[in-house]
Amino acid sequence: MKAVCLISGGPDSAVAAALAKREGYELYCLSFNYGQLASKELESAKKIAQSLGAKEHRVVDISFLRDLYGSGVTALTDSSMRMPEQFEPSIIVPFRNGVMLSIAAAYASSVGAEAIFYGPQLDDAKYYPDCRKEFVSAISRAISLGTDSRLQVKNPLADMSKAEVLKLAVELGVPLEQTWSCYCSGEIHCGRCESCRNRKNAFRVAGISDPTIYLE
Amino acid sequence: MKAVCLISGGPDSAVAAALAKREGYELYCLSFNYGQLASKELESAKKIAQSLGAKEHRVVDISFLRDLYGSGVTALTDSSMRMPEQFEPSIIVPFRNGVMLSIAAAYASSVGAEAIFYGPQLDDAKYYPDCRKEFVSAISRAISLGTDSRLQVKNPLADMSKAEVLKLAVELGVPLEQTWSCYCSGEIHCGRCESCRNRKNAFRVAGISDPTIYLE
Repeated sequence: MKAVCLISGGPDSAVAAALAKREGYELYCLSFNYGQLASKELESAKKIAQSLGAKEHRVVDISFLRDLYGSGVTALTDSSMRMPEQFEPSIIVPFRNGVMLSIAAAYASSVGAEAIFYGPQLDDAKYYPDCRKEFVSAISRAISLGTDSRLQVKNPLADMSKAEVLKLAVELGVPLEQTWSCYCSGEIHCGRCESCRNRKNAFRVAGISDPTIYLE
Repeated sequence: MKAVCLISGGPDSAVAAALAKREGYELYCLSFNYGQLASKELESAKKIAQSLGAKEHRVVDISFLRDLYGSGVTALTDSSMRMPEQFEPSIIVPFRNGVMLSIAAAYASSVGAEAIFYGPQLDDAKYYPDCRKEFVSAISRAISLGTDSRLQVKNPLADMSKAEVLKLAVELGVPLEQTWSCYCSGEIHCGRCESCRNRKNAFRVAGISDPTIYLE
């Protein structure tokens, strides 16, 4: 039983992959370079794949997305834009996760996997359309029809808050200290961007000691 | 009114794009290098975009698919495999069109297009799951939900045979002599592969003089 696990380097996707492992799947991890400023997240993804004993970990370059978006669309790939401290449309990377899931489907077909594990949680779903349950159901159906198979997308964290995901991470032994959330390009977490604020807040709400070193 | 048109270099997608033009859309054409042996098709795509007066034509490199598939999966990217003369599963490139449509959705979001034109026809739908109407409806819904917009995928040739598509091409003034169908890497159409056979046959059935030069 094989599963393709999308791992970004962040805690959520690491927990989704750890759940796949607990369910007995052999893990084929997949990460993306999409031109993100946060190059550290791929280093984290590599460590997470290793710690989960993944059979494979592929990194696919989809930095063509940055060229397609051009400038002024998303602060996550455009260093000339201000990185927001709260949610703003400028941190949406349009249909990025749809592209990633489609590539995951191609990869899953070639290795014979029957599931794709995808880690959006409830707090993301408020803001990011490609993190919502309705989207996941729709793309799962498209993938099954388009591959003429029973391949499906699983989003096991869909009903959990980020704080609940962190609690589950501790239960599953996910190495949270190796995960990366910051949107910026620094050597340590900036502590100020929307993603760092969400991370800090979730650790606080979960009552878990935060192992992250923040710039501020 | 803007439309992203997926153009492969073949006659079907050229006709779908010509229909978008007739409906009054400004065309943003999109083609892919997916590691196909048939590099000629991208030259054809460029000519077609020019002849349709496209506002833009982007070529995106998704040749990472070839690496993900590895060897022995599809004869369209693996030169060590025999190129079939009739339909066989080895000419399916798993979920390739799903990946292309997802990237088209990201591109459409960034240019503000409201439709993606996609050109599969009835004869393809028999064999290729990602050419079927049910798949197109499902991915269209996923794209709309995932971009939180009314962006939709249109497949105007879904109920036409390839011969009917060629007749429509003549009516719309599509330069059929500039289109490319062959799966192989030659300078002219091989005349033997499944795609060349379909092309020849469709011209014959349509009663249109075939401008293609075939090796045999």
